[in-house]
Amino acid sequence: MLRLYFAPESCALASHLALEEAGASYEAVRVDFSKNEQRSPAFLRVNPKGRVPALATERGILTETPAILFYIAQTHPKAQLAPLDDPFALGRIQAFNSYLCSTVHVAHAHNWRGYRWADDPAAIDEMKRKVPETVAACFSLIESEMFAGPFVMGETFTIADPYLFTIATWLEGDGVDPARFPKVLAHRNRMLERPAFRKVAAAHG
Amino acid sequence: MLRLYFAPESCALASHLALEEAGASYEAVRVDFSKNEQRSPAFLRVNPKGRVPALATERGILTETPAILFYIAQTHPKAQLAPLDDPFALGRIQAFNSYLCSTVHVAHAHNWRGYRWADDPAAIDEMKRKVPETVAACFSLIESEMFAGPFVMGETFTIADPYLFTIATWLEGDGVDPARFPKVLAHRNRMLERPAFRKVAAAHG
Repeated sequence: MLRLYFAPESCALASHLALEEAGASYEAVRVDFSKNEQRSPAFLRVNPKGRVPALATERGILTETPAILFYIAQTHPKAQLAPLDDPFALGRIQAFNSYLCSTVHVAHAHNWRGYRWADDPAAIDEMKRKVPETVAACFSLIESEMFAGPFVMGETFTIADPYLFTIATWLEGDGVDPARFPKVLAHRNRMLERPAFRKVAAAHG
Repeated sequence: MLRLYFAPESCALASHLALEEAGASYEAVRVDFSKNEQRSPAFLRVNPKGRVPALATERGILTETPAILFYIAQTHPKAQLAPLDDPFALGRIQAFNSYLCSTVHVAHAHNWRGYRWADDPAAIDEMKRKVPETVAACFSLIESEMFAGPFVMGETFTIADPYLFTIATWLEGDGVDPARFPKVLAHRNRMLERPAFRKVAAAHG
């Protein structure tokens, strides 16, 4: 059985939702960041990066949201979470998810984890100050150029949807009014109604 | 025919090398960052993000290195650049490439493009100061936990190899001595000898 290591309010929500959408057999294991469990020797044996999500499979551990999402789609083909045999359509999904992890999540992280890139508290404060601008710029591009609707890629739900949803739930915390992005906000609201979210919501409170 | 938009000394080198390794039919188009061509209306129609790489295909544009690399592997299966039908092995490659784009490349970017995350010059200087530490931490993890050898994933060359090579060529510029990471350095030296690199090197000078 698959085992997903997650923490509340982290991007692991995307993988958790994808497991539900796939109808996967899995268990979810909470890593308690308030106790710094992600840096414990036991968890570092699971993921030497000390981060979530991590997905334990029969063959070993997978990390990184885009990789885990695609693994779930590929191992649960009946759920049709990605166009596995259409390289261009799949490439568009992978490009979207890669943008989320390398640019949008990174913009957000400067609000909460500036210590990754600076030690001086004044520099960390300056990064925080700019976050509403950088996060809003990312979502402007998503709203105007990337989001097809009603789902990210168009008519079909894919592994891009739980990932966008997860990051869109951080907007208010990053000082950005989601009403500026009506398509993204409507998508976020629809995702809240799906059985997958209702099932895992309490764990991610 | 595929058309790769690239700029010298950018991560587009990874996609350029993968096209060569795949034996793909393509042309390479240089985007001149010194003239800010990446922000020109013509290029923004190619990639609204104003970045390279971008790969023009018959069906449209793909962006983001991990997505382009996987697209090249999937559309050129004879080159065997990824284990397309082995979800776990493929997931490990995708996780590695995702780490490169979302953590390692991002650590490097704080040396050159701190303006993305702060306006205050003092904060940008503080980010630059920390880069040797953060980039070295990433490569320590790659050296000790991720790199199987002789290629990234083990005995077989994959789309993880041109991407690690590309980012490893930035080490000296980021103030990190590559000799600290003997396996990564030996890999970098071997990659320099491959016909793919010899063919594209002049364009990336």
